[in-house]
This record gives sequence, structure tokens and C-alpha cells, in this order.
Amino acid sequence: MLFKRRVTPEQLDQLLHPMIDPKLKKTLKALTKGLNASPGAACGQVVFSADEAEKWAKSGKKVLLVRKETSPDDIGGMVVSQGILTSTGGMTSHAAVVARGMGTPCVAGCKDLGISGKVIKVKGLEIKEGDYLTIDGSTGEVFNGKVDLVKPKFDERLTKFLSWADEIRLGAVRKGLPKGFLVRTNADQPNDAKIAREFGAEGIGLCRTEHMFFDAGKLEIFQEMIVAEDVATRKAVLKKLLKLQQKDFEGIFAAMNGLPVTIRLLDPPLHEFVPKTPEDTKAIAKTIGITVDKLQAKIDSLHELNPMLGHRGCRLGVTYPEIYDIQVEAIMRAACEQTKKGVKVLPEIMIPLVGTYQELKMLRENAEAVIKSVFETMKMKVEHKIGTMIEIPRAAITADEVAKYADFFSFGTNDLTQMTYGYSRDDIGSFLPDYISQGILERDPFQAIDQNGVGVLVKMAAEKARAMKPDIKLGICGEHGGEASSIEFCYRTGLNYVSCSPYRVPLARLSAAHAVLKNK
Amino acid sequence: MLFKRRVTPEQLDQLLHPMIDPKLKKTLKALTKGLNASPGAACGQVVFSADEAEKWAKSGKKVLLVRKETSPDDIGGMVVSQGILTSTGGMTSHAAVVARGMGTPCVAGCKDLGISGKVIKVKGLEIKEGDYLTIDGSTGEVFNGKVDLVKPKFDERLTKFLSWADEIRLGAVRKGLPKGFLVRTNADQPNDAKIAREFGAEGIGLCRTEHMFFDAGKLEIFQEMIVAEDVATRKAVLKKLLKLQQKDFEGIFAAMNGLPVTIRLLDPPLHEFVPKTPEDTKAIAKTIGITVDKLQAKIDSLHELNPMLGHRGCRLGVTYPEIYDIQVEAIMRAACEQTKKGVKVLPEIMIPLVGTYQELKMLRENAEAVIKSVFETMKMKVEHKIGTMIEIPRAAITADEVAKYADFFSFGTNDLTQMTYGYSRDDIGSFLPDYISQGILERDPFQAIDQNGVGVLVKMAAEKARAMKPDIKLGICGEHGGEASSIEFCYRTGLNYVSCSPYRVPLARLSAAHAVLKNK
Repeated sequence: MLFKRRVTPEQLDQLLHPMIDPKLKKTLKALTKGLNASPGAACGQVVFSADEAEKWAKSGKKVLLVRKETSPDDIGGMVVSQGILTSTGGMTSHAAVVARGMGTPCVAGCKDLGISGKVIKVKGLEIKEGDYLTIDGSTGEVFNGKVDLVKPKFDERLTKFLSWADEIRLGAVRKGLPKGFLVRTNADQPNDAKIAREFGAEGIGLCRTEHMFFDAGKLEIFQEMIVAEDVATRKAVLKKLLKLQQKDFEGIFAAMNGLPVTIRLLDPPLHEFVPKTPEDTKAIAKTIGITVDKLQAKIDSLHELNPMLGHRGCRLGVTYPEIYDIQVEAIMRAACEQTKKGVKVLPEIMIPLVGTYQELKMLRENAEAVIKSVFETMKMKVEHKIGTMIEIPRAAITADEVAKYADFFSFGTNDLTQMTYGYSRDDIGSFLPDYISQGILERDPFQAIDQNGVGVLVKMAAEKARAMKPDIKLGICGEHGGEASSIEFCYRTGLNYVSCSPYRVPLARLSAAHAVLKNK
Repeated sequence: MLFKRRVTPEQLDQLLHPMIDPKLKKTLKALTKGLNASPGAACGQVVFSADEAEKWAKSGKKVLLVRKETSPDDIGGMVVSQGILTSTGGMTSHAAVVARGMGTPCVAGCKDLGISGKVIKVKGLEIKEGDYLTIDGSTGEVFNGKVDLVKPKFDERLTKFLSWADEIRLGAVRKGLPKGFLVRTNADQPNDAKIAREFGAEGIGLCRTEHMFFDAGKLEIFQEMIVAEDVATRKAVLKKLLKLQQKDFEGIFAAMNGLPVTIRLLDPPLHEFVPKTPEDTKAIAKTIGITVDKLQAKIDSLHELNPMLGHRGCRLGVTYPEIYDIQVEAIMRAACEQTKKGVKVLPEIMIPLVGTYQELKMLRENAEAVIKSVFETMKMKVEHKIGTMIEIPRAAITADEVAKYADFFSFGTNDLTQMTYGYSRDDIGSFLPDYISQGILERDPFQAIDQNGVGVLVKMAAEKARAMKPDIKLGICGEHGGEASSIEFCYRTGLNYVSCSPYRVPLARLSAAHAVLKNK
């Protein structure tokens, strides 16, 4: 055996981010240096506010967000920036914590920068809005101007190295479990699925279907459904989405030929799909053919005080069963069509946000009725599974009962962490930096799974589920699925696979091998 | 022993709500009848929208809200109404479920009512906005006009009957626990405390301190604190609240002479204290002496997407320690002053929303430092306890560690239910009626504790805490503390007391006696 845990996942992580062309780097002199707050290099035009970042990015520009410090209000601008550069704050400042969470390069606490209005003064230079800067978040260096970056590439040596890791990982033997510890990916589009497959993903652990309602041409139909006043109208409108969604699913099945694909039914609340501004409301009322007042009244009625804890996930499946029905029909029609074309399709339908076995029982029955009817129409059958996400504490606590109606569980540890801690991920920025700097939390529980709290629920659920149904398939699709210590936790807890974003798949393969060796 | 479980808590509940004067009722003929959706009688002027209800109630009028059906948007108006009357919907309609939850009388699904605009047509009569109607939510009857109601009264026979129940309750013996099963009350003001004491409360289980920042004369000071830019300024501003809050606490201690008083430190997020309209913002900016822009920027920065999971409770205590410090100082100064006057004061300081033992450890140390300094200044000491609410799932899961730093736990089962189910109480109205009518939930988990889910966490926490600290005092202060099946659960789980709203204390005393007999 050649694999000996000499290369750490952190080292591999650096290799997998964009970096400054190493040949070029020798000739460059850094302008200044801050803290290496989030790895990877980034280059972009300087903007000084999150709003500007969003505006510029919308018009296709690559921006670098420069701030004294960031706050939760800046999230929108941080998401669209190539990188983030701050003049104050440490490794646990808001900018640093959030950037690491998003995988965005960040140099924090770069004290030499004198930021005033829309100008940075640094070492006698003046850098204005729109000028280029380049940062290296792995070293903390800041370079003046535009610097060529090289994208991470997967060369033969890396492929070879990871194949050694895979030998360990796929050979893992745990009592009562099938051999191996698999790595899947979270991918919503065929293109992401292909990239992940090239990186070694052994299936899709989470395919979100939200975008299939948001895409242009689909959103208008879905909005028409939302304002429809009775079930018959809703069904008729949704029917228009069937073919469009079927095509989406066919693309994903084709890309993952031979590998399992877990598809999560609609999760976000309906108010995410309605217009947000008076102008949009007016335009959409016209398109749908109703009055602005009526549309506005509907929009107002959907408003929620705590959307994270509101009318979403399987709660929509219960109150609007026609939405899940059309999704299940599109999935299974796509599965049949692709099977006919010779593609090996392994669909796994995942019902989100279950908190009681009664929800899953009802929605499973609904789905099975739809599937039966598709198979009759298509005159064929396709093997498939129906399961659920475990992301509500109550589902974990009652996992034995829930398992009766599930072929698989996928731990949605993002939401499970939100509810177990009572933390809104969107709002945590106002206190998380204090919590970390004062030692209340060792680290952001959304990055590495909290083994003493959230992990206890995961373990409880896994044990209860396996006691009820020994061969139930267990995985994780929260972002923890791509983090080394969480991957080891999943291995020890008896999960069959982890699933993470495409670019983290290589790291997950390595981390998984480490986990196997460490727990031999 | 005279007490034999013949009178049910439900029967007692009816006696404790306002009712139509029985002598008068014989002479009355009901106009029509709907479903007896929430017990008690109510009389008020008819309004047809929640907004009108709020407006009229603000001007001091007693209103009866009449709607075809209610929706979550109507909550504000429902809260201020004497009673609720709907023409559609069943026992599990939004109106019915919410009214029972709030203890507001409700007649639902009264099909004879023809509601159109601001007129009700019923049996040839026309009832307009402002006309009086009276409903009896215990029978479903609707009466035309203003009918005299009698308030529940606590006569000698009831007192005698409950004293028999108390014999059972106070004599209860459970292994390893002190004798008895106590009933406390949730009361924020001396007047409520007095009422509850007359009803037999044996202490305050939850005294919320929010109102001590909202009261006129205090809110302006607190707002000034919120916009202050540094700790020194915040401390100086808060100092102005010290005497005012001390006076509040003295009133409560005096009212509860000889009984324990659990005081919860500030819980709601700061954005609940800032102005909501442009007019208010302008006025307050002027009062505080800052620009409107600056105040608006501060208000915007406090906005949260999911306030329930946001920057509140002990998270404020960590990021703004000066707030909790001033509260603890006011509590202990009040305790000293009242002790000097001969009052027996038993203060219990409760730190809310703890999710990690580290939070409690830090905040307990802060509180102890403040208390030490108060005792030095006052040249005396007062016995006191410091504990926490268990309302975050993670606190329940790690209760053994949390218990090391707590003299008591009080289960905040409202929030614990929100997070264990992932349900926002404010938003549940959009799906709860469907969930109940389709049999997914047997009943509203905010009314009766969910023993299979939330209850598992309570039991786990109680067992872990007692294993770590056998004499830790355990209670419940969520609204479940006043519901019969939940009270029995608390007894079986080894809680020392339940705490409920003043008017439910007699019912809790009876339910507790039933629980003792049932589990002999």
C-alpha cells in the first residue's frame, strides 16, 4: 500500500484553488501583505461597497470587494466578488469567516491600506474604484494590477495519488455495512455533474430542483400557479412545466449514466418566487393577466416572519400536492426515456424537511401513485428509491419511525445545524465573530460539524434507522460533506457516503481515505 | 382522601373563563350557532378586518373580529379582539386553532352569516361595523347585541376543592426528588403576580424583562444605547435605566414575598426596539440627537431574515455584556432593598437561549462579578440562584455540561418546539390547519407538548442534568405548563414545578393532582 496520510486535505485544498501563475509569481513583488484568511488567488476591479459589487458583477465585470471590514449586510456583494480584501479584522473577522465558508479567496486585516471614500492609499500609491488588484488568500499577499491566474488542474500525478487514496476508501470494511465509503456530489445541472464526475464523484447526493422553477420561461408559469385560486387551475398550469422539467432531469441522468442521482423535491417557500419590486409586480400581473392589487394581495399573504421555519419543503408538498406530483412525474418520465436510450438511470427521490413520519408516509404514497401511473403510460419500469432528508431535529429524534417509510436518509446538516443551535445562517454574522474570538465556539459550526451537539442527533438517527431497517442507505449532503473532520465523523457514524460541491470532491476522496486509515 | 379525579381540568377550564350571566342566559335566544371553537364568552363591537380591530382597540374599544376566515396576516387583530367569529372553517381552521392557543373565545364556521363588505346578513337582520355581538365559545352560540358577562370568580367551594387537589399534589413523592409538585406562574408585573398568587401560584417561573425596556421613558434611553458607538457610551446610557428597573423588580419581589421569582434577562433582538416608520425614526433621531440617516443606517444594520434564529437572548448578553450587567445589578439591588424592608426575597436569575455551556459559563461569571460588587456596596448578601432556560435543542443534548453552570433549568418549550419541529409559531398558520385536518399532527404542538419529539429532548436534558447535579431544580415555563397532558408529562419526567399564565394556575393545580394520582 502506497498511501500513508502524508498529504493532508488542507494541502490538497490549496492545489485545488486558482493560484497566481507560479512562473509569473517569481517576478512579482507584493504591494503589501495581510492575513491569509481564505485560500486561493483572485483578481478583479476594485469596488468599495457590496452594492457596487452587485451592480458591477451584474454587468459582467469581475470585482474585488475592498472594505475596512464587512458586515452581514455585505453578503450579497461578497457572493458575487472574486475575492475580498479588508484593512481591519483578524482570522475570525466577519470577512474571513464568511469568505472561508463560501470558498472565496480573502486577505483580511491588511493594515497598510488607507481606505477613504473610493480611494485606497498604500505605500504612496493611490488605487481607485475600477483599478485592478490581485490577492493571494493562501499567503496574504496583495499585488497591484491584473495578474494572470492559473486554474486548478487535475494532472496525472494527482489522479494517480487519489487512486491510491481510493483504494483505501473503497476497500473500507465496517461491521454490518457494504464495503466502501463513497463520495458523491451536490450538483443541480448536467454541467456541474460532469465536472464532479471528472473529479471522481460516484453519484449525485443532492440535486436541487429550485432552478427548474426559477429559469426564464418557467418562473412565469410557476408564478401563474402560485396565484391560481383552485387545485384544478394549479394542476393545469403546472402541466406546462412537465416537459421542461423532464428535459432538465434527462440531462442530469445522461451525465450520470450508471451512477445514482438523488433529486430533492421543491424546498424553498413560495414567496421566493414572487416579484420583489413594484415594477416587477406590475409586469408580472400583466403577463399572468390579473390585477396588480390581486397579485400584491397574494404576495403579501405569502410573507413570513421566519421563512427558515416556515411554509417550505414537504410542507408545500402537503398543502400543494400537485407541485410534488408534477416533479415526480417529470423525474420518472425522464428516467424512462433515458433508460430507453440505453442510459443506466438510478433515480432517488428525496422529500425535504420531514419532521414527522406522517408527512413522509403521505408524500411517499402520493409519489408512488404518480410513479405507478407513469410506468403504466410508458409501459415500462425503472428501479428507483424514495427517501428523505434528515434536517429537522424531530426527524432525527424519531428516525426509527421515519425510516419505515424511507429507502434512504440524507443528512441535511446545514438546516440541522441551524435548528439544533437556533442559528440562522443568514444572520449569524452579527455574533459569530464574537463567539469565536471569545472562545464560546471553537469554529463556525456550518463549516465543521458540531460533533457534541448536531453530531449526537446524526448518530442517534443513524442508530435508530439502522435498528429499524439495517440496509437503509445513509449519506450527508450538507456542506459538511466536504470538510475533513466532518467526513471522518460520517465514516465513524456509519454513513455510506458523503456528498459535497464538485470542486471539493478530490478533497473529500482524500479525507475519506484518511478517515478509513485513522479508524482501522 | 376526598379527591378522586371526578372533575376534569377541561370542566374547570370552562368555569375559569368569562361567561354569559347564567340568570340572563335563560331569557336569551341565540341568533344563530356555529362551532364551539374556543371556550368562554365575549362581547364587543363588530369589526371586519384585523387592521380595524387594531385601530379600534387602540382607541380603547372592545371589538369582536368577524371574518369569513382568518389568515396569519390577521394575528395582530386577533390578539386585541375580545372574541373571534368566522363564517367558514372547522374546529381546526386557522381561527379556531389560533384562538384556542391565545385563550380567546371563538365561534367558527357559523354558516348562517352572510358577510359582504362591512355588513353581516343573518336571519333577516343586518349587522354593521360597530354594532354589538356576543358569542359563547363554549357552546357556539351567537347573540345579537351587548350581553352582560360574568367574570370567573373564585368562590369558597372552588377554593376548598382545589385545596383537596393540593393535598395530593404537595404530598407527591418521587424517587430522589423533594416532596411535592409545584405550580408557579408566568408574570411580568406586580399586578399579575398578585392575581396569580391569589389563584395559588407558589412562585414566579418566568418574569420577562422586555417591558422594562419598552415602557415609555425607558424605551428612549434603550434606543440611545442601541445607537451608541462604543461600550463606554452604552454603559453610561444604560446607567440611566438602573433605578427605573430596580423599582420594577422591587414591586415584583414585594408582591411575591416569601416565594421564588425567576427573572429572565433580556431576550428579544434589538431590532424590536427601534422605530418602525419614517415618522417615528425622525422623531427619535431628534430626541437622541443624531441624524436620521445615521439612525436609519443603524436600524438597517439590525435587520434579520430569521429573527427567531438570530441575535437575541444570551447572544446579546455575550456581544453587549453591559445590558445583562445592568439588569443583574438592578435585580440584586432590588433584592437587597426589599430584604432590608423585611421582605423575603428569593431571586433566580435566568439566562435565556443558551445553546452551549460556554455561553452560560461566561455569563454566569459576569453576573457573579456584578452581584459581588452589589453586595459590597450594599454591605449585605441575599441568597440567589443563577440558571438557564433550556429552549435550544443543543442545550438539551448537552445538558450535562450546561448543568455544571446552572442552579436550575427552566424548559422554554415554546422555542424548543419551534426549533425541534422547525416551525415558526408566527408562520405556522399557513399549514397547521391542513396538517391537523389531514392527520399529520394530532394537535397543535404549541398547545400540548409533543411527547415523542420535543418531550424526548426534555427527558434527555432532565436525565443528563440530574446525573450531573442531582439537586438541580427543574421546571417548565413554556405555555405547555398550563395544559393537562403536558403537566402530566412534566410530572413523569421529574420536573419540580410547572409555570403558567395566572388564569391557568387553578387548572394547573388540578391537572397536577390528576398527574400524581395517575402515576402512583
